[in-house]
Amino acid sequence: MRCCHICKLPGRVMGIRVLRLSLVVILVLLLVAGALTALLPSVKEDKMLMLRREIKSQGKSTMDSFTLIMQTYNRTDLLLKLLNHYQAVPNLHKVIVVWNNIGEKAPDELWNSLGPHPIPVIFKQQTANRMRNRLQVFPELETNAVLMVDDDTLISTPDLVFAFSVWQQFPDQIVGFVPRKHVSTSSGIYSYGSFEMQAPGSGNGDQYSMVLIGASFFNSKYLELFQRQPAAVHALIDDTQNCDDIAMNFIIAKHIGKTSGIFVKPVNMDNLEKETNSGYFGMWHRAEHALQRSYCINKLVNIYDSMPLKYSNIMISQFGFPYANYKRKI
Amino acid sequence: MRCCHICKLPGRVMGIRVLRLSLVVILVLLLVAGALTALLPSVKEDKMLMLRREIKSQGKSTMDSFTLIMQTYNRTDLLLKLLNHYQAVPNLHKVIVVWNNIGEKAPDELWNSLGPHPIPVIFKQQTANRMRNRLQVFPELETNAVLMVDDDTLISTPDLVFAFSVWQQFPDQIVGFVPRKHVSTSSGIYSYGSFEMQAPGSGNGDQYSMVLIGASFFNSKYLELFQRQPAAVHALIDDTQNCDDIAMNFIIAKHIGKTSGIFVKPVNMDNLEKETNSGYFGMWHRAEHALQRSYCINKLVNIYDSMPLKYSNIMISQFGFPYANYKRKI
Repeated sequence: MRCCHICKLPGRVMGIRVLRLSLVVILVLLLVAGALTALLPSVKEDKMLMLRREIKSQGKSTMDSFTLIMQTYNRTDLLLKLLNHYQAVPNLHKVIVVWNNIGEKAPDELWNSLGPHPIPVIFKQQTANRMRNRLQVFPELETNAVLMVDDDTLISTPDLVFAFSVWQQFPDQIVGFVPRKHVSTSSGIYSYGSFEMQAPGSGNGDQYSMVLIGASFFNSKYLELFQRQPAAVHALIDDTQNCDDIAMNFIIAKHIGKTSGIFVKPVNMDNLEKETNSGYFGMWHRAEHALQRSYCINKLVNIYDSMPLKYSNIMISQFGFPYANYKRKI
Repeated sequence: MRCCHICKLPGRVMGIRVLRLSLVVILVLLLVAGALTALLPSVKEDKMLMLRREIKSQGKSTMDSFTLIMQTYNRTDLLLKLLNHYQAVPNLHKVIVVWNNIGEKAPDELWNSLGPHPIPVIFKQQTANRMRNRLQVFPELETNAVLMVDDDTLISTPDLVFAFSVWQQFPDQIVGFVPRKHVSTSSGIYSYGSFEMQAPGSGNGDQYSMVLIGASFFNSKYLELFQRQPAAVHALIDDTQNCDDIAMNFIIAKHIGKTSGIFVKPVNMDNLEKETNSGYFGMWHRAEHALQRSYCINKLVNIYDSMPLKYSNIMISQFGFPYANYKRKI
């Protein structure tokens, strides 16, 4: 019998057996792994999706995206309908829902059960139902821009995309869809109102001096600025459960020394409050709402010892949208 | 005889005589002057008017008023009709008419015979009929802002007042009523056009990259900037008798590093060229006009070795003019 040189050495005989055993073990392990991967495809896919989402969201620069802050009270059906719309808006980084339904659990579980979602949505349970809860400095906020929307307001995606591009050109101002004004009277007392307050016989158009924050983009640093305001301002908002937006316009106008906001004319924006099952209508239906806002203006002038609001008559629209909204004259 | 001490001195006797003579002369002169003022009341009034006008015009700050520069060729009837309109526009400081009718006397006499006029109008006789004559640094120009209007273009006063207020907020850009664009093609060659060039299927509105200077406000220092450009730019305009406005947009975009102009949507603007008795239609009716402008864009890119034009989709309108052009949505 002619043995190969391996046979002759006892150590090498042992080596072959270990080698064979190792090979068998490896083969068995590979088969088991293969079986496992075959058995758990869905879990792996979800993880891949999440990984892709994380990479994408980290890729978005903080100037190129914005955070939606939506405060909600007693209109969860509207909220969820609106979230389904806003979650898909381009350049949205994250949603922060300010949950003012005290004692009622936020719908985290429902939200997660209906995932996956395009972007993260954080429900912030509040301790008291305050109007100014939405003006906190949220640690989850990572972007330079805030999109603030009332929980009954539906703004179309083209409107949002355009208004965000306008904000990027005017980042120190509130860029939004709802203009309002203050008027001064011969007594020196101010009043609050809208288009119907246009001075008659002036013949040369209207002016606005505020852009309401409930449908607007503004710089997220203004949340910190709001927090630093005199306690009297916060107290005024708490007492009236109103006027946080008027206060923000005062604060920003004072800060930048020019008109607080730029009005972008909305093409497709609706108020859905009539569609709620809760039977709850917004704060602005209270009898005293409008008078309160005039009251707030005069209080704020008192607190700041000045009227910092400035008038503007600039109305911005998107060139060529809707199609042919500009006709060649010459 | 008791003399006063004066009588005794011979020099003093002479003094009294001189004094008496002087008094008589002065009295006579006063009477004559009085007679003269009684005889020439109208001349005095005109002089008073002129003095009042001078004081008023000197009172206008150079930032609060603008100079109209209107170049004209072969349409004197339109020119005079338009001057009657523009001379009354608020905040107008002066009009400079660039008289391109070579060999024909400018209508100074006719103009003066139909005075008085609200503001001074200077007719600048040119030595050659050049498109770029209107871009000279006129010594008569005292304001920071130029309003440049073609001699067949009627822009309403509300449009002008509003656009000027917009220019005051964006003084480094051309603020005007006629937007145009360049498009790039897959070959890298550019083409020139307007609204009808909107990219199909883009779905999100149009863009413009130029605002034509023939119906616009811009900073008067840009006239100096134009004069300092390479000779090739001036030669291009002279060769084509076209494209001075495209060149200005290139120059300004390059200078400020952002979009050269802001489009203000005109409410009431018309082209009067059909109303001329001269039978002369503007340059843009020439068969090669549009192709020339595409040609100019590519030549300018060549000269500047870059494409400095930037796109914008911002369209500005006046809030509340015409009445109720903004309806409350929410």
